[in-house]
Amino acid sequence: MANAYHCPVELTVDVVGGKWRVVILAHLKEGVHRYGELRRRMPGISEKMLSQRLRELEGDGLVARCDLGTVPPHVEYRLTEEGRSLEPVLQALYDWGAARAARTGTPIEQA
Amino acid sequence: MANAYHCPVELTVDVVGGKWRVVILAHLKEGVHRYGELRRRMPGISEKMLSQRLRELEGDGLVARCDLGTVPPHVEYRLTEEGRSLEPVLQALYDWGAARAARTGTPIEQA
Repeated sequence: MANAYHCPVELTVDVVGGKWRVVILAHLKEGVHRYGELRRRMPGISEKMLSQRLRELEGDGLVARCDLGTVPPHVEYRLTEEGRSLEPVLQALYDWGAARAARTGTPIEQA
Repeated sequence: MANAYHCPVELTVDVVGGKWRVVILAHLKEGVHRYGELRRRMPGISEKMLSQRLRELEGDGLVARCDLGTVPPHVEYRLTEEGRSLEPVLQALYDWGAARAARTGTPIEQA
């Protein structure tokens, strides 16, 4: 986090964080996901990185982790209320990316 | 840029780039800015970094640079049409940051 903010956008970028954090939040905006579902939807990120980013998001109060305590383990992730407040941001990021992909012919391979 | 995208949000984050790029775009959303105005509004970034980010944004077609050729130099920056297409994204980032700052009592010192 910065010592002093000079624009609200700086604060948002600091809280939302880097690329993979935003992509995780965008998937969870669509609903509760099991760990394995996130893995499948994000083939570009390593397992270690995904776990780290999820822990950070949990620590920052944007994502809630629910371990159902079963064998084999069933762990679910969802947005917290603070995370859900980001929905307009996540929607705007999604809409622009989809429009840019259409304009430029960039393929998006959604799992 | 990634080799393959699996979510439109990934594409947006790749194009918009890191924190300072987004903050520059957010200031230019408000209108044409001289270089010195951007410097003043972004005290947290070094001069070298600001110049680099502006060159990148110009190269990526999001920002237009206009050198009026005067002495002393007068250089203006503005969003291109592609840059202006990001306005809903920039507005959503601004609105969330302003709301979060109000919720958490985080000061934002706008120049």
